[in-house]
Amino acid sequence: MNKNGLKLCRIRMFENYMRRPDGKYDFTLFDNAYKAAEKYDVKIWANLFAASSFEDVGGFKFPKSNNHLDSIAAYIKNLVIHFKQYKSHAGWVLINEPGSGHKPEEPFTAQKFMDWKKNQSTPVYQSKGYHTFGFENERFLLDYNVWFLQWLAKEIYKYDPESHLHVNNHSIFQLVAEYNFPEWRKFLSSLGGSAHASWHFGYFKRAQYAMALAGNCAILQSGAGNLPWLMTELQGGNNTYSGYEPMCPTKEEIAQWLWTVIGSGGKGAIFWSLNPRSGGFEAGEWALLNYQNKASDRLLAAAGVTKVLAAHPSLFAEAKPMVSKIHLLYSRESLWIEKKLQTGGASNEGRDVGGVMKSVLGYFEAFSQMGVDAGIQEMSEFDFTKNDYSDEFMVLAHQISIPSKYWEQVQHFVSNGGKLLVDGLSGYYDENALCVMKTGFPLAALLGGNISEFKFNAHPFPIVVTSSFITLPGYSWQGSILPSTGKAIAVSNGEINAVRNKFGKGEVVWIPSLVGLGSRIYGYAPLVALLKQEAKSTLVSLPFQFKLHQPGLLMKTLQSGKNFITIVINKNTSVRKVPLQFDGKWKPSIIYGNKTGTLLGDNLWISTEETIVVKWTLK
Amino acid sequence: MNKNGLKLCRIRMFENYMRRPDGKYDFTLFDNAYKAAEKYDVKIWANLFAASSFEDVGGFKFPKSNNHLDSIAAYIKNLVIHFKQYKSHAGWVLINEPGSGHKPEEPFTAQKFMDWKKNQSTPVYQSKGYHTFGFENERFLLDYNVWFLQWLAKEIYKYDPESHLHVNNHSIFQLVAEYNFPEWRKFLSSLGGSAHASWHFGYFKRAQYAMALAGNCAILQSGAGNLPWLMTELQGGNNTYSGYEPMCPTKEEIAQWLWTVIGSGGKGAIFWSLNPRSGGFEAGEWALLNYQNKASDRLLAAAGVTKVLAAHPSLFAEAKPMVSKIHLLYSRESLWIEKKLQTGGASNEGRDVGGVMKSVLGYFEAFSQMGVDAGIQEMSEFDFTKNDYSDEFMVLAHQISIPSKYWEQVQHFVSNGGKLLVDGLSGYYDENALCVMKTGFPLAALLGGNISEFKFNAHPFPIVVTSSFITLPGYSWQGSILPSTGKAIAVSNGEINAVRNKFGKGEVVWIPSLVGLGSRIYGYAPLVALLKQEAKSTLVSLPFQFKLHQPGLLMKTLQSGKNFITIVINKNTSVRKVPLQFDGKWKPSIIYGNKTGTLLGDNLWISTEETIVVKWTLK
Amino acid sequence: MNKNGLKLCRIRMFENYMRRPDGKYDFTLFDNAYKAAEKYDVKIWANLFAASSFEDVGGFKFPKSNNHLDSIAAYIKNLVIHFKQYKSHAGWVLINEPGSGHKPEEPFTAQKFMDWKKNQSTPVYQSKGYHTFGFENERFLLDYNVWFLQWLAKEIYKYDPESHLHVNNHSIFQLVAEYNFPEWRKFLSSLGGSAHASWHFGYFKRAQYAMALAGNCAILQSGAGNLPWLMTELQGGNNTYSGYEPMCPTKEEIAQWLWTVIGSGGKGAIFWSLNPRSGGFEAGEWALLNYQNKASDRLLAAAGVTKVLAAHPSLFAEAKPMVSKIHLLYSRESLWIEKKLQTGGASNEGRDVGGVMKSVLGYFEAFSQMGVDAGIQEMSEFDFTKNDYSDEFMVLAHQISIPSKYWEQVQHFVSNGGKLLVDGLSGYYDENALCVMKTGFPLAALLGGNISEFKFNAHPFPIVVTSSFITLPGYSWQGSILPSTGKAIAVSNGEINAVRNKFGKGEVVWIPSLVGLGSRIYGYAPLVALLKQEAKSTLVSLPFQFKLHQPGLLMKTLQSGKNFITIVINKNTSVRKVPLQFDGKWKPSIIYGNKTGTLLGDNLWISTEETIVVKWTLK
Repeated sequence: MNKNGLKLCRIRMFENYMRRPDGKYDFTLFDNAYKAAEKYDVKIWANLFAASSFEDVGGFKFPKSNNHLDSIAAYIKNLVIHFKQYKSHAGWVLINEPGSGHKPEEPFTAQKFMDWKKNQSTPVYQSKGYHTFGFENERFLLDYNVWFLQWLAKEIYKYDPESHLHVNNHSIFQLVAEYNFPEWRKFLSSLGGSAHASWHFGYFKRAQYAMALAGNCAILQSGAGNLPWLMTELQGGNNTYSGYEPMCPTKEEIAQWLWTVIGSGGKGAIFWSLNPRSGGFEAGEWALLNYQNKASDRLLAAAGVTKVLAAHPSLFAEAKPMVSKIHLLYSRESLWIEKKLQTGGASNEGRDVGGVMKSVLGYFEAFSQMGVDAGIQEMSEFDFTKNDYSDEFMVLAHQISIPSKYWEQVQHFVSNGGKLLVDGLSGYYDENALCVMKTGFPLAALLGGNISEFKFNAHPFPIVVTSSFITLPGYSWQGSILPSTGKAIAVSNGEINAVRNKFGKGEVVWIPSLVGLGSRIYGYAPLVALLKQEAKSTLVSLPFQFKLHQPGLLMKTLQSGKNFITIVINKNTSVRKVPLQFDGKWKPSIIYGNKTGTLLGDNLWISTEETIVVKWTLK
Repeated sequence: MNKNGLKLCRIRMFENYMRRPDGKYDFTLFDNAYKAAEKYDVKIWANLFAASSFEDVGGFKFPKSNNHLDSIAAYIKNLVIHFKQYKSHAGWVLINEPGSGHKPEEPFTAQKFMDWKKNQSTPVYQSKGYHTFGFENERFLLDYNVWFLQWLAKEIYKYDPESHLHVNNHSIFQLVAEYNFPEWRKFLSSLGGSAHASWHFGYFKRAQYAMALAGNCAILQSGAGNLPWLMTELQGGNNTYSGYEPMCPTKEEIAQWLWTVIGSGGKGAIFWSLNPRSGGFEAGEWALLNYQNKASDRLLAAAGVTKVLAAHPSLFAEAKPMVSKIHLLYSRESLWIEKKLQTGGASNEGRDVGGVMKSVLGYFEAFSQMGVDAGIQEMSEFDFTKNDYSDEFMVLAHQISIPSKYWEQVQHFVSNGGKLLVDGLSGYYDENALCVMKTGFPLAALLGGNISEFKFNAHPFPIVVTSSFITLPGYSWQGSILPSTGKAIAVSNGEINAVRNKFGKGEVVWIPSLVGLGSRIYGYAPLVALLKQEAKSTLVSLPFQFKLHQPGLLMKTLQSGKNFITIVINKNTSVRKVPLQFDGKWKPSIIYGNKTGTLLGDNLWISTEETIVVKWTLK
Repeated sequence: MNKNGLKLCRIRMFENYMRRPDGKYDFTLFDNAYKAAEKYDVKIWANLFAASSFEDVGGFKFPKSNNHLDSIAAYIKNLVIHFKQYKSHAGWVLINEPGSGHKPEEPFTAQKFMDWKKNQSTPVYQSKGYHTFGFENERFLLDYNVWFLQWLAKEIYKYDPESHLHVNNHSIFQLVAEYNFPEWRKFLSSLGGSAHASWHFGYFKRAQYAMALAGNCAILQSGAGNLPWLMTELQGGNNTYSGYEPMCPTKEEIAQWLWTVIGSGGKGAIFWSLNPRSGGFEAGEWALLNYQNKASDRLLAAAGVTKVLAAHPSLFAEAKPMVSKIHLLYSRESLWIEKKLQTGGASNEGRDVGGVMKSVLGYFEAFSQMGVDAGIQEMSEFDFTKNDYSDEFMVLAHQISIPSKYWEQVQHFVSNGGKLLVDGLSGYYDENALCVMKTGFPLAALLGGNISEFKFNAHPFPIVVTSSFITLPGYSWQGSILPSTGKAIAVSNGEINAVRNKFGKGEVVWIPSLVGLGSRIYGYAPLVALLKQEAKSTLVSLPFQFKLHQPGLLMKTLQSGKNFITIVINKNTSVRKVPLQFDGKWKPSIIYGNKTGTLLGDNLWISTEETIVVKWTLK
């Protein structure tokens, strides 16, 4: 690690390998690691891993009984007191990968659930008295994760009150609605995540993995708020039997992933794993080191990145993503409702689990191909308290549920100068899955009308934005608008398919058809054209972007004091000439490139799979 | 409803929305509906819907305990006494959609099953003493549905002895073997059904939905016997999350479906639903009205149909389907056995669940494309007591089980002049799944031989009917006949694949290969040619039919006093010229058409998706 | 049977059809069969079939309780004492098709499992102290099968100590790791198997079924050791509802299968079934006889084979497969680990269940297409005790686990002159699924190096064997070798993909990529070329083989005294000219052919689907 510039590692502190049959702890194995870390100047994050069965690969996510809880507490006490003394000790990871997909079926959880229910106050908003789903399991699970993480944090603080606490969620696109990041921030020192292509990127093809990781990072960045964050697990090596989609990352992918994390504001990344595990479900898999503990080409690629970071210490230390003015918002409730309403039958990307998130990702990828960073934020993470949202651009992409507490807030955003694009069935339900479009649509004034009907189409359908000659690809459901103040901007067969509505100082463009998802399936060119137009006042403020739509490319931009850093990745199978848009006052220098890429005038030439990092200084 | 000519509605009388926590009933919500119905001259069928969980979309199908039964009885008492007084009250629907697919796993049901078994007398026919399946679960479920519906009827009669009772089965092609219509008739005033394309028409492609509905109607028509029937639920609007195959009916489909019900002798149809539900699994879906409670194009299409009915009151009041002389028979036992014998493995339309029903539907569709109404009847619904079946045509299409009680009856049909076409593995099993072809084939005399072997073919195979140069497409199993009195009419590789057998005054054509299903998969032209020939004496008696085979079209014929009504639907994607065959004595007038269709001489010109209704009077 | 030369049958001795309600036995039904057998000179193997539910098609595989065990014992006592007296009685089949796929979930089994665990001694080899899977369920199941079969044998021996005992395993490619053949031999008189294409050959396409059967036979032949074996069940006729892949064997397939069994050293074959069952899940299916109990073309084909056997009694009585010098070895542990490590996700033939066995079958099929018999042996069945393995050729095809006890033994094979080809991930794990390639590779000296990494490839990749210009198709995982003594024979992108290593008197060719499986998917030509070269010294000693690679053909060779018999089957859809390689001293005579095949000089002409049997005598 030292030789390759890797300065931080995470170790799973298996209680199974510490606790002897007599109940005493033998820390030898881990002491060795801590001592070696001291010797080689590596910091360790110790990941709690209380006793569990050998076949439990990821570890339990919740305690199983009060006795179990006591046992975990005892383990923490022993562990923390012993290891906090090491200079190489840098912090604690509370648990491995919280997030389970469902409420556990255990008596202990059942009791916790009953307690939780007793403490729930009656919500102010009651869906006008209609009978509705309560989503109690979902809301409980959200709180239960908070409770257990907080409990672990408190136990650690008992013995190491100053310690750095971290946790790595996982499978973010599937499980994010279980993670209450704003609550987590209250007891964490930093946020993290596991982003394993072979386990977690099932919504993507391999050529999209860099973009998928960028999306994962964007969600973490928003979740972290003012906390630092880093990517706690990145896939280091080959899968044989483990992983849903077997793969071995290429050295180019390793570079792409590291730079994507850095370009998204992450403080670094840790690979799973450095050396391969020997037994169990991952034996001989996942590692950066080969079977001789020698560096693989992947580790050398990682070292190539750390070398650049080391060569520009202050540049990267001060580098931050610019404060995003492009906000792709999602709501937990949309994800909960989508999952709840699954009825089986024919598969359809719009209504299967994933439709909500893929719609957001559609816009994210479109902006990526414009060379533009967009934020992905849960609605509770967005700052709705400002007085001015001029030049800010928000997208609600097929967010089927806008909970009642946000109805006024979204209006506040627009009336104070924000621009809002509304896509798909956004706003169809309230938080209880009541169809508010038919019970007095609370967003009617904001959107400039209401829906008369949504209709399913078995085939893709065009949404022709009349003024701009842009034809967006619609998928599955097409909404017809009955406008009040909204002005029609797309009409077909006598139905109004999109409107533009001035609202206060801002404006809404409402396209109640799945065009984000449609673009993801059929191509981004028209959506990019639309976004260039509709988000123009936001885009002009960006110092760097692609001049043209660049399928298969992405760019991340960091600001570091007066300088900028741009990171461009080319996932196309051939070299690309990429005209960049930036002010003439900037002078570029390439500080990283792993193929033959170069910058000639405004044009970045970039090879297939290459990552190029440019530092921009004032002339 | 009043404005659009809709005169009958069904309301689910949710006990959940009536019964207060103190056990008293508050009927206000439903009183409002009944009063509005009085004001606007709409009749209400009240659908019992005793308390159930909010997540139980369709309602329970059987009681769960004696207490539950008492609770249902109390609900019925309160409900019936209160609502029977309204002038707008027209009848009771006993339960929503009986039919569950399996015996419930509950102690109450287990007790009922034990009681039922005690009361079963030993059947006369015992499969010659072979060990066989008993099909007790299947037979019990059939009786248990009867028992519960009857129990509900009796409870209602206690308080409203004159009332009109109705029930709507559902998923007819999958669940019909659970419905004992002849027994139901004893306590019902009318029969109904739910026929939702997106839930129930999984055996069909969208372009076949009108034909699928016609098949559903044919089964109900036979099930109803001398009772009136109507279609209790038709899909009114769009699906988002609910429904197996999401769709929104077009206005043309709405017209097709309504005319198909009418053309099949139905007294009308009710849509699910008028206005969309607000909460739960169907929030905002299924409705004829849009979110502003305004008429959709679908409701306007329905109004277009009601206007024609209103304009010709006596014509439609007296209209009835002609007594069918074409009988496509199925047996419950064939469906039971097919389901029982599923072993998994490679999918095959002939042996998967559905092979039996799809074979019947193959013949039904072939006749539809000839412009000819065919009946679909459970064997118990067919009248085997007549003395003369001249000019009647029966098909046993891959009815793998002919129960022993019908062996003589089918012979009676043929020996008294009937014509019988036998397809596929019909008659292979008795009612206990004993292979009677190898234990002394009871139909040998009737069919003119026995099977020597069935052999599976991985590829479609031709059955060449020598005399007529017709080559039928065979699917999967090909039977070889060892003839006794039968004369070979199709031979290949030295094997006899079909015979013709005179039997009494009638005749049998036996093609023991899956040619009905084969035609459904590979095309109907040869089968239509065969049917034109073999059913000639039946067909000549029909006043109206297509001159030629018309793929994608269907025609229904009604007789009204001395007049006739023909309904033609074109599901092709282009206009069609359709030569009609009828006597010169008839004078046509088009009373409904929703596109540019017209009648020129003998030729009906009909647009894509159009429905044309012609009234025929004597010149 | 008599008329068609069938001299042995198997009867399931259903206790259900013997035991009367009063507990006494009525053997009449079976006495009739035994008497008929005496009359017609047919021998009977009586298959124990203790009472089970009518719906239990295959019979239970393990007892359910001590009472159950007592009941089985009582049944055996009654049965054996009664039937052993018949002259037509030839032996007992202990149970129908042992092999269940998993440990039964029953209290009786749980108790047996606990007893078994108590009796397990601590293994010498402990995976260096790493935590590992124990594979207790798998090892128990292996022993539990032995225990129950042995228990049944002992019960029979109590009353019929001289009797012939037989058992038929089934689904060999899926379940073989449950069968401890060497242990079974201790109480069996002969070994058998059920090899039903429609149930058991899911790894193959129909055109491969003869080869699949040959593979099945090879496994049985090795399992039987010095015991005789025969194929206890071959599919006799058509499936309708039963079987995973419905089919009706052709008369040509029946001949192919019989000759394949004979050519593999089997003493004969019994069909399931002679006449069709009447009731239950297989009613009217599977039979050689038609519904009139007349011979089908399949039975006539079988008779055609028996006629040849009868015409050459001594030739076939003395015929044996030559002692194979080509050994395709598999390990139970590889199959256990492969199954254990399934994680779901994307399907991949290399890591799905089946990858281990299909890799072996790839080499088996390659040799088949060379006209060469190869043995398939569990590692425990191979004789590692010899002092000289000159001219012997062993393949370890993607045997992911080489248990520790074989590490020295495999070295012994090579160091004493054997040639070893190692393919895929062979040796990756020890018996506890520890990845020994990263914990000090125990086979490093033998293979001439260690793996540095395996990497997954989404696309097929070439392994170019430099010296010979042979390009093998690699599938999914490609290994890179860090050689010690091994000499690189395939290199790509600077990585060594294969080495040749002299070891003692022998040699290893190590290709750590899935080229056996790759050849199975993409074609055998390159692998055949490689095998011709690498196995040359073994192949030259064979008296008969194909001169060229013959896709779609297979040849089996028997030695009978000084004569030879060759059996060639052509599964191609057209006639083939097949140059044979043999010494000029041999004179051929065709003793069986069922089409127009002939032998002209060295060239065998063989029609599609034909089987030709040639007797070779010295000139």
